[in-house]
Amino acid sequence: MEKEIVKLISEAGSIAIYPHISADGDAIGSSFALGLALRNAGKQVVVYIEEDIPTVYRFLPGLELAGFYDASCDVADINIALDTGDVGRLGSRAEVFFNAPCTINIDHHITNTKYAHFNFVNAMSASTGEIIYTLLRELKLEINSDIATCLYTAIATDTGGFQYQNTTAETHKITAELLSTGINVGEISQRIYDNTTYEKLRLTAKAIELLELHDNSKLAVVALSLDNILSIGAKEEDCDGIVNIGRSIESVEVSALIKEKSNNEIRVNLRSKTFVDVSEVAATFDGGGHKRAAGCTIIGTLEEAKNKIIEAIREKL
Amino acid sequence: MEKEIVKLISEAGSIAIYPHISADGDAIGSSFALGLALRNAGKQVVVYIEEDIPTVYRFLPGLELAGFYDASCDVADINIALDTGDVGRLGSRAEVFFNAPCTINIDHHITNTKYAHFNFVNAMSASTGEIIYTLLRELKLEINSDIATCLYTAIATDTGGFQYQNTTAETHKITAELLSTGINVGEISQRIYDNTTYEKLRLTAKAIELLELHDNSKLAVVALSLDNILSIGAKEEDCDGIVNIGRSIESVEVSALIKEKSNNEIRVNLRSKTFVDVSEVAATFDGGGHKRAAGCTIIGTLEEAKNKIIEAIREKL
Repeated sequence: MEKEIVKLISEAGSIAIYPHISADGDAIGSSFALGLALRNAGKQVVVYIEEDIPTVYRFLPGLELAGFYDASCDVADINIALDTGDVGRLGSRAEVFFNAPCTINIDHHITNTKYAHFNFVNAMSASTGEIIYTLLRELKLEINSDIATCLYTAIATDTGGFQYQNTTAETHKITAELLSTGINVGEISQRIYDNTTYEKLRLTAKAIELLELHDNSKLAVVALSLDNILSIGAKEEDCDGIVNIGRSIESVEVSALIKEKSNNEIRVNLRSKTFVDVSEVAATFDGGGHKRAAGCTIIGTLEEAKNKIIEAIREKL
Repeated sequence: MEKEIVKLISEAGSIAIYPHISADGDAIGSSFALGLALRNAGKQVVVYIEEDIPTVYRFLPGLELAGFYDASCDVADINIALDTGDVGRLGSRAEVFFNAPCTINIDHHITNTKYAHFNFVNAMSASTGEIIYTLLRELKLEINSDIATCLYTAIATDTGGFQYQNTTAETHKITAELLSTGINVGEISQRIYDNTTYEKLRLTAKAIELLELHDNSKLAVVALSLDNILSIGAKEEDCDGIVNIGRSIESVEVSALIKEKSNNEIRVNLRSKTFVDVSEVAATFDGGGHKRAAGCTIIGTLEEAKNKIIEAIREKL
């Protein structure tokens, strides 16, 4: 961690934290962990969110720090973007983010565009949560069980439950420290993983039914229309994790979930296992992410988007 | 680890290792890890198995140590049972296990019956793999990346990918050490988790279709007939993990998979989340296991077994 960033944060009176849009476990967990530690250190802290915190993460300590920015909000001494690879991922908060006299960008995405006054990007880190752990140690702030719960959630979700290639010895060392604070792993895991609804299970069964295997079963594609999702009582957020169904097949190198968000707006999630850099595929459609997990949005029909994506992936296989 | 056991192993010339019947990742990973380390130390080592090593674990280093006992096999100086709670779990190898002049039982099941000359049972350990790690350290044997791959597989599978309540800071500390040997976590995870076949996915969809929720959705039951399994081209071993489908539902406390093995022989797998001790439920039917994961076999029809199990679980809810 750059000494300058540690000094700036340590001297600030008020700090606003910005997780990325469609915030995931790492973005939210890291934001709440940093927010709680800084509040415990006597600072004024707020976490400005783009959307409501997803139900699955509402158990996290620090939820009370989250709020929506409006014109009545004070400008903080420092605005810190977390887990946010580029300005686009700040969504509607991009303008207000740059209003602060000092902006900091802390992230682990290799594609990070270093858009702030001060940038700390460690692409070797499996999660932003691990970077925040190190930052809190350097700030000499106590990591209590509430903060550890947030960081554990950040790390566990961004490593796919410690399964992804990005998981390092350091990931497990930090996690051991977090467990030493007495957090309840069984309970947190249940909150994160065992929160399925019957409707989501039916969506899983539907996705299996719709799953197509292409190119010698190296490419798995699931295309879900809005009607597929809504007709069985599922919600759009129930699509989280559906992309891993295709990935779980032994022969598959790339798995794509192609999901109709609204008429003409199609969201694509991509996962790969060994050699295809899906962030390159996503970049073709102005998206981004990591080598093994990326996403993009395509304007068109579900069928058009599916064909474009299959074509783009096929070139890499 | 008892000093006596360390001394006995260290002085033995030949050692035979016995994982339990229907060996899982912990039994096989621990057996191969111990076997490889002892072979590297110059000892004669064999791992006597009851059934072929399941396909999913055939990538593990040490596979060549595994074999079936027959009358031409030498009696080893020491027979070591690993991850084996009682003599019944030695299956047809029980008699030959007790033929050795010295028998050792190393396990983490709280229900272990201490059936050997020397017994080391640590129920605080999430996996037998963690106990073997400690044993190898005490034996001052090198843990190379092959051995680390086996131990990682043992630990990861018995903690449900570090998710279960049994996971401790020690689990992660040991895992950090294993990762330091340079093992490829992404590749191992793919071998362990992303090895699904299209047929297994279809079995998952079938299980979701058959899933019943009872008692205010606190109990999930899936009863699979042999015909359910075979008619979609799936194999019996594809049922591994199906019990977790019910467990993944937020409201569910107990999940039961009731599976027809052959006419009149029904295998039951039980999982619980918070308060039901499923090893007690399993014990009612002469089965065993842990508080949160247990199993038993019932003689009867699928329907009879289902009703008996629902009745027995209902009393605990």
